[in-house]
Amino acid sequence: MNDTKTPQNAAAPAAVPAAVPAVPAAVPLAEDPNAPLDLAAFKHAFRRHAAGVAVVTALRPDGTPVGFTATSLASLSSVPPLATFNIARSASTWPAIAESDRVVIHILGARNRGVAEVMSGPADKRFDGDHWQPGPHGLPVLKDVTSWMVGRIIERVLVHNSAVVVVKIESGGMGENDQALLYHERTYRVPGADVQPRRV
Amino acid sequence: MNDTKTPQNAAAPAAVPAAVPAVPAAVPLAEDPNAPLDLAAFKHAFRRHAAGVAVVTALRPDGTPVGFTATSLASLSSVPPLATFNIARSASTWPAIAESDRVVIHILGARNRGVAEVMSGPADKRFDGDHWQPGPHGLPVLKDVTSWMVGRIIERVLVHNSAVVVVKIESGGMGENDQALLYHERTYRVPGADVQPRRV
Repeated sequence: MNDTKTPQNAAAPAAVPAAVPAVPAAVPLAEDPNAPLDLAAFKHAFRRHAAGVAVVTALRPDGTPVGFTATSLASLSSVPPLATFNIARSASTWPAIAESDRVVIHILGARNRGVAEVMSGPADKRFDGDHWQPGPHGLPVLKDVTSWMVGRIIERVLVHNSAVVVVKIESGGMGENDQALLYHERTYRVPGADVQPRRV
Repeated sequence: MNDTKTPQNAAAPAAVPAAVPAVPAAVPLAEDPNAPLDLAAFKHAFRRHAAGVAVVTALRPDGTPVGFTATSLASLSSVPPLATFNIARSASTWPAIAESDRVVIHILGARNRGVAEVMSGPADKRFDGDHWQPGPHGLPVLKDVTSWMVGRIIERVLVHNSAVVVVKIESGGMGENDQALLYHERTYRVPGADVQPRRV
């Protein structure tokens, strides 16, 4: 899922049925008349990929808090501690990301589903309420998340109309533990059963 | 989790207990004597972040297949279809990624847990077996995954000893549907219950 397309506002799924009929495993594309191409391949694959849910916040130069729900958060390295997230340059949060030194990256738990929805809803309503407070550098910190990190933006890689943002983590805080919040098949979920080892 | 640190070979967790005692929500760091700093903040946050499991494969110039299990796969944009993944430049797959035009990105389902372990185990054993076959451009395609995409590498962003790789998806294929494979808290899981809406 692209972070432009916020969870509940995600684009309509590609014309691929939710339950795809069984096909021979890993049929090369040219041999499979139902196989998707290009955008269809992309949408099909990401519909089957689950993601953890994070929220990135920043400040506009005038001090207005901005932020968005992200399913693209990833670790880049641990020494130094670096993380990445992706954002569309059409997103309401992008101008602040483009100009800010720092962001806050929050890890959401199951109890934060409401916050995930607020932070992917109408941009002008995302900080209505008492679900946040000013934190380090005056940055907006969401309350009661399971973990949060303050980081300095060290790279903004512009690719077509999107950007990859690389953040060096400087500090953080933690909240009470909870089940992780996932986004998969257009639904918020928690992790379920362990998958037992099987033969390849 | 950094893709250098493959799931089962991940570095020892930071000195943060699995069940963190309740602390006031989102305590600013300076006020919380137990709050982690820098690397500790990073490790704490990513331990609480769940991720979908993918495998990236490529070919060395001599035709040897290489690949690794990745928890960093993310969508960057859908038009054009772009994806990102992160890799340590010390990883066995990096030299091929550095020189290749194309990669295959596979989305794993629960039935592919064994493949996830093989592809994050000893590098010289990852293609021992019949769990893969040559696909488009001669690239190694894993059999029986839920979805796979062939893409052209359009950016390699070197950051310290790691790299962010941007891939333009060109085509792909699909396998039988399955529950998504997750990696969370050093364990392979499937998505569980829906999280019902609550007030923020």
